[in-house]
Amino acid sequence: MNEAGLREVLQRFRRGELNEDEALTALADSQVADLGYATLDLSRARRQGVPEVIYGRSKSDEQILGIVDRFHELGARDILITGMSQSAAQIVGEKHDLEYHALPELGIVNRDREKALVGSIVVVSGGTSDMAVCEEAALTAEVLGNRVSRIYDVGVAGLHRLLRRVDELRAARVIVAVAGMEGALPSVVGGLVAAPVIAVPTSVGYGANLGGLTALHAMLNSCASGIAVVNIDNGFGAAFMASRINQMPGLETAGG
Amino acid sequence: MNEAGLREVLQRFRRGELNEDEALTALADSQVADLGYATLDLSRARRQGVPEVIYGRSKSDEQILGIVDRFHELGARDILITGMSQSAAQIVGEKHDLEYHALPELGIVNRDREKALVGSIVVVSGGTSDMAVCEEAALTAEVLGNRVSRIYDVGVAGLHRLLRRVDELRAARVIVAVAGMEGALPSVVGGLVAAPVIAVPTSVGYGANLGGLTALHAMLNSCASGIAVVNIDNGFGAAFMASRINQMPGLETAGG
Amino acid sequence: MNEAGLREVLQRFRRGELNEDEALTALADSQVADLGYATLDLSRARRQGVPEVIYGRSKSDEQILGIVDRFHELGARDILITGMSQSAAQIVGEKHDLEYHALPELGIVNRDREKALVGSIVVVSGGTSDMAVCEEAALTAEVLGNRVSRIYDVGVAGLHRLLRRVDELRAARVIVAVAGMEGALPSVVGGLVAAPVIAVPTSVGYGANLGGLTALHAMLNSCASGIAVVNIDNGFGAAFMASRINQMPGLETAGG
Amino acid sequence: MNEAGLREVLQRFRRGELNEDEALTALADSQVADLGYATLDLSRARRQGVPEVIYGRSKSDEQILGIVDRFHELGARDILITGMSQSAAQIVGEKHDLEYHALPELGIVNRDREKALVGSIVVVSGGTSDMAVCEEAALTAEVLGNRVSRIYDVGVAGLHRLLRRVDELRAARVIVAVAGMEGALPSVVGGLVAAPVIAVPTSVGYGANLGGLTALHAMLNSCASGIAVVNIDNGFGAAFMASRINQMPGLETAGG
Amino acid sequence: MNEAGLREVLQRFRRGELNEDEALTALADSQVADLGYATLDLSRARRQGVPEVIYGRSKSDEQILGIVDRFHELGARDILITGMSQSAAQIVGEKHDLEYHALPELGIVNRDREKALVGSIVVVSGGTSDMAVCEEAALTAEVLGNRVSRIYDVGVAGLHRLLRRVDELRAARVIVAVAGMEGALPSVVGGLVAAPVIAVPTSVGYGANLGGLTALHAMLNSCASGIAVVNIDNGFGAAFMASRINQMPGLETAGG
Amino acid sequence: MNEAGLREVLQRFRRGELNEDEALTALADSQVADLGYATLDLSRARRQGVPEVIYGRSKSDEQILGIVDRFHELGARDILITGMSQSAAQIVGEKHDLEYHALPELGIVNRDREKALVGSIVVVSGGTSDMAVCEEAALTAEVLGNRVSRIYDVGVAGLHRLLRRVDELRAARVIVAVAGMEGALPSVVGGLVAAPVIAVPTSVGYGANLGGLTALHAMLNSCASGIAVVNIDNGFGAAFMASRINQMPGLETAGG
Amino acid sequence: MNEAGLREVLQRFRRGELNEDEALTALADSQVADLGYATLDLSRARRQGVPEVIYGRSKSDEQILGIVDRFHELGARDILITGMSQSAAQIVGEKHDLEYHALPELGIVNRDREKALVGSIVVVSGGTSDMAVCEEAALTAEVLGNRVSRIYDVGVAGLHRLLRRVDELRAARVIVAVAGMEGALPSVVGGLVAAPVIAVPTSVGYGANLGGLTALHAMLNSCASGIAVVNIDNGFGAAFMASRINQMPGLETAGG
Amino acid sequence: MNEAGLREVLQRFRRGELNEDEALTALADSQVADLGYATLDLSRARRQGVPEVIYGRSKSDEQILGIVDRFHELGARDILITGMSQSAAQIVGEKHDLEYHALPELGIVNRDREKALVGSIVVVSGGTSDMAVCEEAALTAEVLGNRVSRIYDVGVAGLHRLLRRVDELRAARVIVAVAGMEGALPSVVGGLVAAPVIAVPTSVGYGANLGGLTALHAMLNSCASGIAVVNIDNGFGAAFMASRINQMPGLETAGG
Repeated sequence: MNEAGLREVLQRFRRGELNEDEALTALADSQVADLGYATLDLSRARRQGVPEVIYGRSKSDEQILGIVDRFHELGARDILITGMSQSAAQIVGEKHDLEYHALPELGIVNRDREKALVGSIVVVSGGTSDMAVCEEAALTAEVLGNRVSRIYDVGVAGLHRLLRRVDELRAARVIVAVAGMEGALPSVVGGLVAAPVIAVPTSVGYGANLGGLTALHAMLNSCASGIAVVNIDNGFGAAFMASRINQMPGLETAGG
Repeated sequence: MNEAGLREVLQRFRRGELNEDEALTALADSQVADLGYATLDLSRARRQGVPEVIYGRSKSDEQILGIVDRFHELGARDILITGMSQSAAQIVGEKHDLEYHALPELGIVNRDREKALVGSIVVVSGGTSDMAVCEEAALTAEVLGNRVSRIYDVGVAGLHRLLRRVDELRAARVIVAVAGMEGALPSVVGGLVAAPVIAVPTSVGYGANLGGLTALHAMLNSCASGIAVVNIDNGFGAAFMASRINQMPGLETAGG
Repeated sequence: MNEAGLREVLQRFRRGELNEDEALTALADSQVADLGYATLDLSRARRQGVPEVIYGRSKSDEQILGIVDRFHELGARDILITGMSQSAAQIVGEKHDLEYHALPELGIVNRDREKALVGSIVVVSGGTSDMAVCEEAALTAEVLGNRVSRIYDVGVAGLHRLLRRVDELRAARVIVAVAGMEGALPSVVGGLVAAPVIAVPTSVGYGANLGGLTALHAMLNSCASGIAVVNIDNGFGAAFMASRINQMPGLETAGG
Repeated sequence: MNEAGLREVLQRFRRGELNEDEALTALADSQVADLGYATLDLSRARRQGVPEVIYGRSKSDEQILGIVDRFHELGARDILITGMSQSAAQIVGEKHDLEYHALPELGIVNRDREKALVGSIVVVSGGTSDMAVCEEAALTAEVLGNRVSRIYDVGVAGLHRLLRRVDELRAARVIVAVAGMEGALPSVVGGLVAAPVIAVPTSVGYGANLGGLTALHAMLNSCASGIAVVNIDNGFGAAFMASRINQMPGLETAGG
Repeated sequence: MNEAGLREVLQRFRRGELNEDEALTALADSQVADLGYATLDLSRARRQGVPEVIYGRSKSDEQILGIVDRFHELGARDILITGMSQSAAQIVGEKHDLEYHALPELGIVNRDREKALVGSIVVVSGGTSDMAVCEEAALTAEVLGNRVSRIYDVGVAGLHRLLRRVDELRAARVIVAVAGMEGALPSVVGGLVAAPVIAVPTSVGYGANLGGLTALHAMLNSCASGIAVVNIDNGFGAAFMASRINQMPGLETAGG
Repeated sequence: MNEAGLREVLQRFRRGELNEDEALTALADSQVADLGYATLDLSRARRQGVPEVIYGRSKSDEQILGIVDRFHELGARDILITGMSQSAAQIVGEKHDLEYHALPELGIVNRDREKALVGSIVVVSGGTSDMAVCEEAALTAEVLGNRVSRIYDVGVAGLHRLLRRVDELRAARVIVAVAGMEGALPSVVGGLVAAPVIAVPTSVGYGANLGGLTALHAMLNSCASGIAVVNIDNGFGAAFMASRINQMPGLETAGG
Repeated sequence: MNEAGLREVLQRFRRGELNEDEALTALADSQVADLGYATLDLSRARRQGVPEVIYGRSKSDEQILGIVDRFHELGARDILITGMSQSAAQIVGEKHDLEYHALPELGIVNRDREKALVGSIVVVSGGTSDMAVCEEAALTAEVLGNRVSRIYDVGVAGLHRLLRRVDELRAARVIVAVAGMEGALPSVVGGLVAAPVIAVPTSVGYGANLGGLTALHAMLNSCASGIAVVNIDNGFGAAFMASRINQMPGLETAGG
Repeated sequence: MNEAGLREVLQRFRRGELNEDEALTALADSQVADLGYATLDLSRARRQGVPEVIYGRSKSDEQILGIVDRFHELGARDILITGMSQSAAQIVGEKHDLEYHALPELGIVNRDREKALVGSIVVVSGGTSDMAVCEEAALTAEVLGNRVSRIYDVGVAGLHRLLRRVDELRAARVIVAVAGMEGALPSVVGGLVAAPVIAVPTSVGYGANLGGLTALHAMLNSCASGIAVVNIDNGFGAAFMASRINQMPGLETAGG
């Protein structure tokens, strides 16, 4: 329920159309649907201006299908499912219009392919091995309505691969920099551009990479400014943050 | 040297006014000043559109003064010194126009007090104990030219303190959320607003807070979207990132 | 052997019916049954006032069956088996009256379904993914004779989902708050109620969640008071503690 | 504002005595006092049924005094200040009726020494070195109105010291078990009693004690049931939790 | 080569029967057999007075067989193989006289079943789940020629189970105390006996047990004296150490 | 109270000289003295056959003096105080016959200098920096009645320093091997001798030594057999364990 | 593009054969090939003087084949693939001249078997279990053109196995010392030789070995000088570093 | 004793000039001097070809002086003392010819200022704050006889500062790359040069830098090849390793 709705309830209460308890209940219940195993937040899309998102990783295939069903009934488009297994894709795909990407394990139900893409987000990565995380970020950003460029495998140990694409980097409104191992890419990128950089550490590496913690902590200690960091392998989160910035109120939506 | 300058050198080289080695040297040296102990990046302010910043924490008082002197000679204003000890403030203040804030250990030399402040950044904190970090963030953001509001001590264990100020939070272009202990504030704030949230974990707490790592890792695992995180106690970094977003090209500069 | 039994042995010794060594042995052996691989504590139920509990996780199916057999011979009811695999359930179910719950991997042998439930424990969780741990807690609490309410998927990133159920939370004698990721739920709940809160971190999340350690440490640093914490994913332990509180001597047993 | 107060505001709004904006403001502002550096939660005492508590550890002496002043003006009694330094005690003591305990660094302003103590909490510790934490727990519990017994220095390496006091332990409604080093005390105590046990790890020890993390994690893995844990050295938190349990609604208040 | 052998080489060199280079080579090569993938230390058994031991965990089945073959050719008895998989047992068993224990994954080739057992080692454990580690310790100790008693599943949460067997514990020359979870058993046992206690932490537990590190670190911080610790799950190492103590030169070998 | 004493109480109870409650109390209280801040275990020396030990590290000077006073009254000799600060030594020394060693911070009150030393313990160390821990071990072992040899600064990076003293090492009944940094000494020593080796990691080193955890964990992973480990810097604990082994019942006490 | 090539482009630009944009593009693009999922650095071999290397671990079989195809087209020899799975070897082997080593999971395409081997690198290991890492190092070093000796299974717990081969060690230009568990081998070797030692920790061990971190940190704290360390299990990296040293410009290439 | 000396002893033994025991003793004792607290390795300088080194960090001022005295008596020059405090410098300087550098806490006694410097080592650093570690490395390398260049404060966030000095980097035989915070410098440098790179992490940074562990682990995960790592802040160790490489037998000693 938006603010108008809330004021409406208050007015109806004042006019005596609702008694006190009814008013309290109406205020509380209007925004939520209870599936038993999940409490759907029906107003989030409106409140946050984004498509519905289902975190598939720790849900059963049936739970995912149930939530998709409910959002579909409500007419939702661009229902994004992260961490969607092959088997979940199977059963959702039989019943719904599903676009499934196997590498980043990402599903999109009822995708709105006509949506105008705005602004410019660049997803840049250090190595081929980071590609699943990169694609989770890039596809999420696209579903959220952003124009996205990909610059992959330009790690800091071969600087000229990165330097020859500086112009593309400088043209971005926001940059998502993805790197595993020592996680040095965001520091180097951050020193080359004036746009905000969202850094995504990945779990790529072994031994002293500590499952991605080394890259994560390195990025947080970056000697460059204008960098903030999301969780290990969290391509979705980086794209969501980048999208909020790329589509800030007041920005023209024609792109960079 | 900006892009125009670089093209200028190339053209002079083509016209034979510079020989090959002179051209290479000019390109390389134009942007740096060597103090022996420091290699000043003279073009950073222009390249990144921000005031000069000196990280005072691990420099001697004399080194800080030396760098301030050099920037001052170049006519710099708004020279920001983070982690500035009382004694460094003493010797810099004797020679320069210094505004010093003891709690966040922050100095500003040649502050431009007429600068127009734009947009709106809200700095929100969980507890009184986080105030030094909050003020590092708030003052940095102001020096960088942003309009800043402060909402302090509204931790999640007393929700109504936070909820009564939701309107202020929703009016911000960017939010800097500062919290120690369990670091839950950004999750709650992130669920209430549509603006990007920069989360700053602090080292406040003891025992299982692990010097701030617990708050840091908790924020990275936030169940809310639209959050990115900076290093523990890094108020400066959060403000710098927030400023980049608040002043993105294309945004009107009249504020929120 | 209860206190009466102990005094009985002492009196028989005084009367010369037992010699010194017999007395010492009687005191020591009366409370234990040796299965070779396990030393059953036959007096625990009486001493602690609770049903028998078998920690199934690191026992073989045959060991579990052997212990159930022994307790069954002694006439035990409400034999609770945590961490019970599908295969253990198979072989125990063929021989005994077993109620098996697959998601929390919990078995109950000889369940007493007529038992009066007392007091009120609320199990509240942050997300659908925490449901296995929640159900381990809720079912355990019910087997221990407590009246239980479930409030699931009301994480702090969508506060209104939680706030609309504050009345239910405030009606509880004890609250079990289950959350993974950043583990912020107990802090928020703890600020809303006056009942003791048992916090259960779960291993849900990835990367910087460190297998649940982040949620665990965050909960231990909660800025709210009246919270204590059990091990990661330990729904059983939380329910056991909650039950002790909900059934404290002196409390009426009619419920809240 | 309690529930009655909230309903009062709603009724005044219905009767037209408050307009819509006035109603919203009244609801939000009635419970909070802003000191600039602190947002005091004036209703917490009533809402949670406990005295005012000031966490002194990361506040300046002046901030502590300011908050004490404000609570004093409101007529508060039993203002508890944890982590209170000698110097803070000095300046507060000059102006207020302060009872100060140096070992646990605890202050009590306007202590109500006539307060009836109810129920029974036992604070039991493994060693002399844990005494500061024990006393923080014991004194806090007393200020909160609980009858408290102390059993100190009865570590598990000399079992008979502990066993000779089993009767006292069994007479408690709630037990606070404090231990550093290997943190084994709560497991042993938990096996001897039927009351809930709040375990407090301390930072006492060295090397592999990891500043208390070893005791903390050991307690969380206790093989005994009916144990929950608070943060390292958090005597206050344990006492607060114990008090909530010892004074649960429905319990007679005459003590054990 | 023992000391006598070394002196022999020196004498032959003096008498000119060996030239200088031959002497050096003889000294170096006499004690080692090279299998390519392994450098067998043929003199270890004699030097350390123990049977041959093969650490099977990270060797291929073929490597294990190859080493057994070589020791067998040399007439070795009591060849102990730890961490021996079912498949390694299969191929070794087809060719050699193998006694295989599946739970502790332990194999013994050419076991000398007539060997007189001496002294007394007690292996005591906290829970049924620790049994694999206990049996690795107990069987190793027996192969090394020690008389062994087993006291299993007597964890500290049910003290009377342990206390009724104090006499057996006090009769031991050396005690191996095995425990997972909070690892409190060695502290309690150490306080009850005067014999040296070898503590073995196990990886049994979950969450904050950190794969056994919590029990390990707790044991190292034991408040009891006379305890030393071996690696997590290292039943073999504990038995080896216990055997050295139980069979110290000067001790009568008739047992306790 | 020893076993004889316990049987005496039982007999007096049988004869009616003690009633039931008196018997229980006598059994419990006979072994303990309560100083308020400490519960002295008066029977430990007899039960464990060792001098009194006071862990001085976390006790106040006054508490240490109080405990020394009490033991002195009881006629105790060889009262060992570990972690004794200069100031504690000052006040204890004014009143008692104190031998104080500043480097290992060790005090001995009423030292029995005539005591016959038995067996042979070698304390061997890797570097000069480990000397405080070595001396804590060596002095403790001497107070406990053991003959002790010192072999210091023979680290593994200069093997010949160690090898030239192999005979001394091989003559020991027990070896205490002290090392910081990479903690390799016990592995090398363990491969050279047949005696049990007690390994003591020290906190000497920096960076990746992790305050001694690296040496501790390395020692636990030693590829040599016959090694067990005590806590970081715990020279006392190693000596205590070594003493128990060196003085095992059945060993002649004339020394090695 | 080497320096000559870069100067060529600059000259062509000066002569007007390239316009400004063409010059910039030529400089940037000349060294890279874009496969979509990978940005091949075509000049690395020349710039660093080494064969092509493909890190196979986190690449799909198809990606590996694609990159091999591309390098093959360019006439590359000695294409090294680390972390190459059996299945990747299958599909690459069907199309290319592949030499595959299963234990270290290493593939070599178009191996130049006539290549002269120079200098001398010794690979020395502590145990049989480290052999996969050793062989990754040894084979890599051979492909890079170095003469390699192998000394395996000479751990520090049996010093004489190591000491009899000191001459071989002292003959090396560079030593690669591989060890798991406590990681002591490099310290001992480093004390015996004057050549630089590259230490490789392995993940061999369990419990407190922390997946190799213990050996890694121990090696970094080595008390011997002349040691530097690479990542856990990184045989390739150690060999690459050793090769750079063994083939330093100015060294005769005839070997040791 | 060098090899010649050893053969001499053997020959004298053969000729009967030494008996067997005298020979063994001569072999063992010839290389060591015992100061009680230190076992000086008198042959190390000759064996390893380097000056004497004293690790001052954990030695008392008197111990340092004692060792310097002893080396001085033996005629040693270039006695290097790392981690030398101001007070140790004071007492050593009063008696010896000491050159003391306060920032890196490094002392040199009897410095040979005429020594010819050979080869070329470049010490490159990321920031001014790393200077103490850089100078420890640079001075050590100079004392060891190497020609050293310094390139400081050229961190990766301002790439052009680094790139303008690529020629100097490429001219080095060995590079010591020092960096704190995210530790990215060695990766970038490693991609630009063909010389071996010794990476030195520093403890500069805060929060998630974990006292230098983050930089350390990042460097170990470097995506560039030809890098090996030493302990945190270990400038001495890096210089020692670099010196061994720079002065490898076979390299001309005229420098780069």
